[in-house]
Amino acid sequence: MNVGLITIGNELLSGFTTDTNSAWIGQSILEVGAEITWHVTIGDQANKITAVLDQIPEDIKVVLVTGGLGPTHDDITQKTLFEYFGVQPVFDENYWNILNARMVKRVRVMPVINKNQAIRPDKGSVIPNNSGSARGLHLNNDRMDVFAMPGVPREMKDMMSSTIIPWIHDKTKSKIYVRTLRTTGAMESVLAEKMADVTEDTRPVTVAFLPQFTGVDIRLMCPEKNPLIEIEGKIRDKVDKYIYATGTVDLEEIVGDMLSERGYTVATAESCTGGLIGHRLTNVPGSSTYFLGGVISYSNDMKMKTLGVQENTLQEFGAVSKQTATEMAHGARDFFGSDLAIAVTGIAGPGGCTAEKPVGLVYITLVHNDTVWAKKFKFFTDRKLNNRLSSQVALNMVRIHLLNG
Amino acid sequence: MNVGLITIGNELLSGFTTDTNSAWIGQSILEVGAEITWHVTIGDQANKITAVLDQIPEDIKVVLVTGGLGPTHDDITQKTLFEYFGVQPVFDENYWNILNARMVKRVRVMPVINKNQAIRPDKGSVIPNNSGSARGLHLNNDRMDVFAMPGVPREMKDMMSSTIIPWIHDKTKSKIYVRTLRTTGAMESVLAEKMADVTEDTRPVTVAFLPQFTGVDIRLMCPEKNPLIEIEGKIRDKVDKYIYATGTVDLEEIVGDMLSERGYTVATAESCTGGLIGHRLTNVPGSSTYFLGGVISYSNDMKMKTLGVQENTLQEFGAVSKQTATEMAHGARDFFGSDLAIAVTGIAGPGGCTAEKPVGLVYITLVHNDTVWAKKFKFFTDRKLNNRLSSQVALNMVRIHLLNG
Repeated sequence: MNVGLITIGNELLSGFTTDTNSAWIGQSILEVGAEITWHVTIGDQANKITAVLDQIPEDIKVVLVTGGLGPTHDDITQKTLFEYFGVQPVFDENYWNILNARMVKRVRVMPVINKNQAIRPDKGSVIPNNSGSARGLHLNNDRMDVFAMPGVPREMKDMMSSTIIPWIHDKTKSKIYVRTLRTTGAMESVLAEKMADVTEDTRPVTVAFLPQFTGVDIRLMCPEKNPLIEIEGKIRDKVDKYIYATGTVDLEEIVGDMLSERGYTVATAESCTGGLIGHRLTNVPGSSTYFLGGVISYSNDMKMKTLGVQENTLQEFGAVSKQTATEMAHGARDFFGSDLAIAVTGIAGPGGCTAEKPVGLVYITLVHNDTVWAKKFKFFTDRKLNNRLSSQVALNMVRIHLLNG
Repeated sequence: MNVGLITIGNELLSGFTTDTNSAWIGQSILEVGAEITWHVTIGDQANKITAVLDQIPEDIKVVLVTGGLGPTHDDITQKTLFEYFGVQPVFDENYWNILNARMVKRVRVMPVINKNQAIRPDKGSVIPNNSGSARGLHLNNDRMDVFAMPGVPREMKDMMSSTIIPWIHDKTKSKIYVRTLRTTGAMESVLAEKMADVTEDTRPVTVAFLPQFTGVDIRLMCPEKNPLIEIEGKIRDKVDKYIYATGTVDLEEIVGDMLSERGYTVATAESCTGGLIGHRLTNVPGSSTYFLGGVISYSNDMKMKTLGVQENTLQEFGAVSKQTATEMAHGARDFFGSDLAIAVTGIAGPGGCTAEKPVGLVYITLVHNDTVWAKKFKFFTDRKLNNRLSSQVALNMVRIHLLNG
């Protein structure tokens, strides 16, 4: 099923708000056999909304609209859609009372401006809002069905999940199986080359590469489940070592699961990444059972004092060296008494580089029992990107080590 | 000047790529007196691109197009635009040689598939690409000017800055002054109430509130500079204490500047935030001069061992308490020998809460000389949001302290 999407809001056009709703909507309807084939963003002006409604491509019979349903004067989506579909506004006394009762609970008085939140159409229906006051709308005529939702992500997602996606699924009666294989450690071109035999013919499965900063997601889609499983197997035969997770799971979650399963604890020693690895590990609920802590040692002094890095190591090899990274990892393990420790030292840029040690040079060492795994990387010139990549590689080293160990 | 935007790419519609280009484009042309008034996203299909070109609203004479200029079979923007504008492809031997020479440098052979990268139109012009191989296009007829760019953000931005924005500016001969006042610590409604006298009439300046996770940006726009300065002054009279920066500067940069100016050093002790404050501080180039380091002390053991938190403090008040936060801050200052230290302990959720200590409870303490500033917060139920907010509040406490001290 082809679905149209209209996002309404001056702030989207002027770029002061980045539209994240549309990507979520695009993904979420794929799985019920529908896809966004046309997406328009316009400002909060009635005539523009009407013009766009008149331009909807022939092959689209279902249109989702987000934004402009709030109580302020900018929010003209409701009024415009009512006029377009020739429906009359009805004041919904019952809902108004519910809204007022909610406000009383919070010891506030409902502003009169909110009265339009209690308007419903005389034909069509409203979509309940479990997270806010503005209800959604479902209006239709012979040409199309339109669903209007607020632009607030939580409210939009709630309406999509509870009402609109089930409605679409009921019409399509179909299901698309989507499987995302998340990889890290190999560039898109490397993966593509390794998988060339498989991707030559994957019918009826479609395969797409989605490159990101810190890895490439391989997305498989198919109306049936079995061919998808078969192609996934063939892909895994070729590039399994790069696949760390499926779906939307992050690397830190996988690493956390692996540590938990094995009953290991981990500690970190971070120089250039400044706490990012610890932050990512602790983003996972329950991480306190395996993450004992970390030291952010930005100065040489602290590398020596806290982590026991030897002064002559720093003098002979420098703070950004394999030797220092390895001593930092040992130091962190001793300091926290953890099973594993991971240490990162590097030159994130833009400053701090020398002829021998360019921006982007990063050393990472993992220690565990007798294992000392030290690696050298040459990343890029962008500070934030280098730190992000360093944290990804460090977590991936933990994953690979646990997988093999 | 009204400008249309067409973004091309199946991956944008299916939501596997989030469109960040459009927000950047929307913002960047505002300052030369132009605005995106209509934005369409469509897939990589020639007939859809043509249909959308036919639907461009009357009042739009300049259209920007991104995506679909690469070398793969999906990339049909070039061919489609050539046909639409009735121009002929010319093979640009000169550029092809340049591309090949670049490849030789990298000891690679240019794939033949890349030949279309050297195609130029017989009428109209190409836009140089300093960051990649696909050049942009500038085509026009009596109806409109179309600029096509690659979807790769760096290449798009480069072409916008070097060629397209100057072209637009030359047409508009106008300039819009944009000023963004970044605030944290007050909700949109609180700011709006405090600023009510000012916002009643700000003509000719437009004022918009752009609420985000960790604060509200107040955006001022005006074709002239003086009224904007005047309104900014009036706003500052009302809410200056919440404004931490202007433009796109982040709180950690401001805090870094303030520490540098005063010659102070800082250290961190992080429990629930797990390294996020350290990570944010070290995102700023040059932060090694004032950030000495941090301890991520997730366990009680480490709070005692590293930071010298007293066992009876933990027993009597708990790990999440004002007393523990304060001892952590003192401990970090002693440990790193810094001037200031900031400590955070809290329950980020979803686990770890009790009847007295709900999810979202966070204590933050700042110490500096004799100052001990301890604050209690009750945030939300979302782990990542709580950590993000905690880091924002902690950095803002440093800012406020340095401002007053």
